[in-house]
Amino acid sequence: MTERWTLYAAPMTCAMAVHAALLEAGLEPERDFEVRWVHRGPGRQIAEAEFAALNAKRRVPCLVTPDGELLTEIVGVLAHLDTLHGPPRSPAERRRLIEWLAFVATEFHQAILGPMFDPQSPEAAKADGAQRLLPPLLEVVAAHLETRDFAVGASPSGADYYLGWALALARFGAREAVAHPALLAYLERLSAIEGFQKAQAINLERYRALAVA
Amino acid sequence: MTERWTLYAAPMTCAMAVHAALLEAGLEPERDFEVRWVHRGPGRQIAEAEFAALNAKRRVPCLVTPDGELLTEIVGVLAHLDTLHGPPRSPAERRRLIEWLAFVATEFHQAILGPMFDPQSPEAAKADGAQRLLPPLLEVVAAHLETRDFAVGASPSGADYYLGWALALARFGAREAVAHPALLAYLERLSAIEGFQKAQAINLERYRALAVA
Repeated sequence: MTERWTLYAAPMTCAMAVHAALLEAGLEPERDFEVRWVHRGPGRQIAEAEFAALNAKRRVPCLVTPDGELLTEIVGVLAHLDTLHGPPRSPAERRRLIEWLAFVATEFHQAILGPMFDPQSPEAAKADGAQRLLPPLLEVVAAHLETRDFAVGASPSGADYYLGWALALARFGAREAVAHPALLAYLERLSAIEGFQKAQAINLERYRALAVA
Repeated sequence: MTERWTLYAAPMTCAMAVHAALLEAGLEPERDFEVRWVHRGPGRQIAEAEFAALNAKRRVPCLVTPDGELLTEIVGVLAHLDTLHGPPRSPAERRRLIEWLAFVATEFHQAILGPMFDPQSPEAAKADGAQRLLPPLLEVVAAHLETRDFAVGASPSGADYYLGWALALARFGAREAVAHPALLAYLERLSAIEGFQKAQAINLERYRALAVA
């Protein structure tokens, strides 16, 4: 009988943002939460039978609460963790949080990073995302971050861990596009957040171990 | 001075689901809400200067509340309307609503319908969505709908108007893939919902008017 959270993750996927959120919530690895690494394989869906039996979507992240509730979809997962562990928020600020999470999930993650990091996506789709869709999107993000430190409110939230993950990956795939000073300064700010830094380091280590395996 | 909601929409985009949600909330067209149709043009972003000045993302739907709050991102827009006008929901049921909205927005809408209905997307991306990504996704949706009438809870919600819109569009672009009995029965159920039916009819009429213009 476990009273812990269980995060199902694959290295360098957006599950990294949930990992950061758990750490930043002050939860202690092993004591309060466990990360189970699943093998992503070449496609978007995870083939492991045990994981597929738990989550019909066969995608990460998914998070099992200490009560045994299965949470899928990163927008909902991060919003829930924010409700439990984030600062008090007005209804309007909570709307902004969901709005930013949904923006990163749809426009950034799925439309651009999805094809860019899916080996089975056509090359034309990867290039279309990087060249046509990414620049106007980054304009919106940079304009927002020129006047504030974090995506929503005065302190880092799940929206930042998710957006930071997306920007770091976009930078990896399309370096020039992310060279805006406001975006680079934001990534610097995020890299000073202990939980984000730690989640990123663990993910990178796992990812490299897979790459050489 | 208006005390109405203003929905910015382009015909047959997912703004249709928000239109349906406003009607199903019992809001009266013209008296309680206004639909402003914007011209979508060939790309994903709307070029109209007046709209761009309001919404830096230049995407629909966006909804301005009677208080003048700008809401973007359909996940947040539909979640907010549900909070105001939907049935009472437990926190767990609210998590399911966000989860379904996010699922449709990311996996279905952005990953598959985005390229499929964007004239500037590469043909390879359209085909990849329809042939590789759509079938396993529809399996998840069909399995869910085999044991219940609506996406979340016992009555139709924004998740259904959004999922129904997505299925109808997918059916238009990849008819065979949506031929699952559970999906067709669900679309039948949705077509009996007055607000959904009305929003769809208005959108189709607008869309056809544009097509012949």
